[in-house]
Amino acid sequence: MNYNKILATRTSRIRASAIRELLKLAADPNLISLGGGLPSPDSFPLDLVMELTDKVLKKYGSTALQYDTTEGFTPLRKALIDYVKTKGVDAKLENIYITSGSQGFLDAIGKLLISPGDYVAVEGPTYLAALQAFNAYEVNYAQIQTDDEGVIPESMEEMIKSYPVKFVYTIPTFQNPAGKTIGLQRRRQIAEIILKHDVLLIEDDPYSALRYKGESLPTIKSMAPDNVIYASTFSKIFAPGLRIGFIVAPEKLGKWLVLIKQGVDLNTCTFTQAIATEYLTGGYVSGQVKKIINLYHPKLETMLEALEENFSKDFKWSKPEGGMFVWVEGPEGMDMEEVYKKAIEKGVGFVPGKFFFPNPDDGIETMRLNFTNITEVQIKHSIKILASVVKEEAEITKSN
Amino acid sequence: MNYNKILATRTSRIRASAIRELLKLAADPNLISLGGGLPSPDSFPLDLVMELTDKVLKKYGSTALQYDTTEGFTPLRKALIDYVKTKGVDAKLENIYITSGSQGFLDAIGKLLISPGDYVAVEGPTYLAALQAFNAYEVNYAQIQTDDEGVIPESMEEMIKSYPVKFVYTIPTFQNPAGKTIGLQRRRQIAEIILKHDVLLIEDDPYSALRYKGESLPTIKSMAPDNVIYASTFSKIFAPGLRIGFIVAPEKLGKWLVLIKQGVDLNTCTFTQAIATEYLTGGYVSGQVKKIINLYHPKLETMLEALEENFSKDFKWSKPEGGMFVWVEGPEGMDMEEVYKKAIEKGVGFVPGKFFFPNPDDGIETMRLNFTNITEVQIKHSIKILASVVKEEAEITKSN
Repeated sequence: MNYNKILATRTSRIRASAIRELLKLAADPNLISLGGGLPSPDSFPLDLVMELTDKVLKKYGSTALQYDTTEGFTPLRKALIDYVKTKGVDAKLENIYITSGSQGFLDAIGKLLISPGDYVAVEGPTYLAALQAFNAYEVNYAQIQTDDEGVIPESMEEMIKSYPVKFVYTIPTFQNPAGKTIGLQRRRQIAEIILKHDVLLIEDDPYSALRYKGESLPTIKSMAPDNVIYASTFSKIFAPGLRIGFIVAPEKLGKWLVLIKQGVDLNTCTFTQAIATEYLTGGYVSGQVKKIINLYHPKLETMLEALEENFSKDFKWSKPEGGMFVWVEGPEGMDMEEVYKKAIEKGVGFVPGKFFFPNPDDGIETMRLNFTNITEVQIKHSIKILASVVKEEAEITKSN
Repeated sequence: MNYNKILATRTSRIRASAIRELLKLAADPNLISLGGGLPSPDSFPLDLVMELTDKVLKKYGSTALQYDTTEGFTPLRKALIDYVKTKGVDAKLENIYITSGSQGFLDAIGKLLISPGDYVAVEGPTYLAALQAFNAYEVNYAQIQTDDEGVIPESMEEMIKSYPVKFVYTIPTFQNPAGKTIGLQRRRQIAEIILKHDVLLIEDDPYSALRYKGESLPTIKSMAPDNVIYASTFSKIFAPGLRIGFIVAPEKLGKWLVLIKQGVDLNTCTFTQAIATEYLTGGYVSGQVKKIINLYHPKLETMLEALEENFSKDFKWSKPEGGMFVWVEGPEGMDMEEVYKKAIEKGVGFVPGKFFFPNPDDGIETMRLNFTNITEVQIKHSIKILASVVKEEAEITKSN
């Protein structure tokens, strides 16, 4: 039958994206990929998962295999009260909700707040999967300017004043894709601005636990609790295949999100929620996070050193103190999509940065590099190759 | 802050439902509940889950804990090719997609096909959570009339002719809520009608494996493969807390559903998909399903006998050969919401049937009874109480 005739109008915003087509070029398994965003499988604690499963089946029995409340597995929600306290976030049970990964929350908040044509303010660049979640609700974006310290508060305020934004979405710490972190003073400014204009802000925080050096920063949530939904996940501190995210939200919004989520997935996987509960309450988090940090920190340093050694002064890049990404900005006019195509031929993949910007003409000369999922030898080798491709491209750009 | 000002327009269709408020009355744990729709926890194979987890971690290692493709865990999709063959459904890998429970599919198909104001044809009564999933996309319903054999094909055709329906949604076997099954001849008629009018039909089939007597019927999918999406789940044949559903869809629609699902949850829980894979490929399904049937069949017979013994001839009820529900229709004018309130006071809960109809004035005199999650003694006892409440109500109705 002719399926096209029955598609919903919103599908015009969901069609197969250019980036997906582009990334298909990187399907060769021999490629060294700086393109992904996956945690290293070396970090997954297989024995611990086995041990926790045994505990879960003994402790919760069939409850762990049954339908559960849409709000989330109560013992997990309770355990998270203490966990988010370590992030300076005060929460009661009725503020904590479990989601099917961070993505489950991004979809739910889009569905709850975005009517077709509504505005959402996001950093340029921002997290691709957030754009994907919001696009399905036929959103418009107000793009906030960023610099080395992430969101520029004045630009955020300008967007709030210029557009009737439904909410601001930001990843303040070790941002994906740019690896940048909003400093303390700016966090305070941002909190003031959203309070002043009575605007909701989504603080997406998957990476702050992966801090390799420097000092932790307070969450924006802690500065404006009624105006912020704090979102995080077990994907980066335990394992993404369990699909467990969580949020801390004002109760009224939380209740709405539950009504939304009920129609989307009834409840998040009970079994893996129970495993995550035992992971938290058993005191395994700090040891596991230390293990992950020991795995990723040298990779980050290796990448930063390799960039220093191989890339010319026409380039600049973020120097994150944690997370999973480094952001490279080339000289004006350099088209990183062209660089990508040539790098792929030489066996190195990455993601051209322009795909992370809602404004279609921005970020042509940028790229996102991931360092968590390859070895240090591969990092050195691939950055060298990338530097040579970029050098060639610079000569072409100059001669044009 | 004032959150109401930022809600999306669709939330007017998602507000806290009357049924949810009503069911709160049934929160007393001492209540005998004929109201739920949960599988019996006694049926969950805890030891097997432990064994399969061990297998999964040894066989798939960290892959079982990593992000996975949106389409679903490939070994599970492959294993399902053989499983759906037992339902008479021919499928290749590119026709099979994993969803986060059946609900994940219902949300995705609504999001893919329903623009605000579009029509969907559903049985009256139909599955409440399907209505909930579709409502969020601001749908209108064309209600198909049903009788003892479920969907009346002529009524379905009339709805297709009268409204520009995006798709027909039906549960042909042991329907929730009515426990009814569409017979062979009608299935053929339905297939002919959707082919003739080139309409898409969703065949939701969570219960057909739970057949206690009588003969299996072919799926509508097998009669009109290009016009049907077949959907099923592991929730009733294994455990709902794993949140694994699956569909067999024409490839073009499947690809669209993947684009939709990517923004909703990236991928279904990898870990529990891997467990479901080993459950299927290890040959455990038929033994486990037999165990479930042995548990549920006597409960169904007990309920049917108790109804026969206690309910007067003014009542009729479905006599299903499987599934989890019995549907009772009282004499015209009897308000089962009133009966519900009185029954709750006497310690028995059920769901008034009117909530399962999209047309708000239908089904006043109906109720849905679940029998899987209580003992036979409880079934006898609760049906007796229900009969006495109903008798009182009949006298009130008559005297009015």
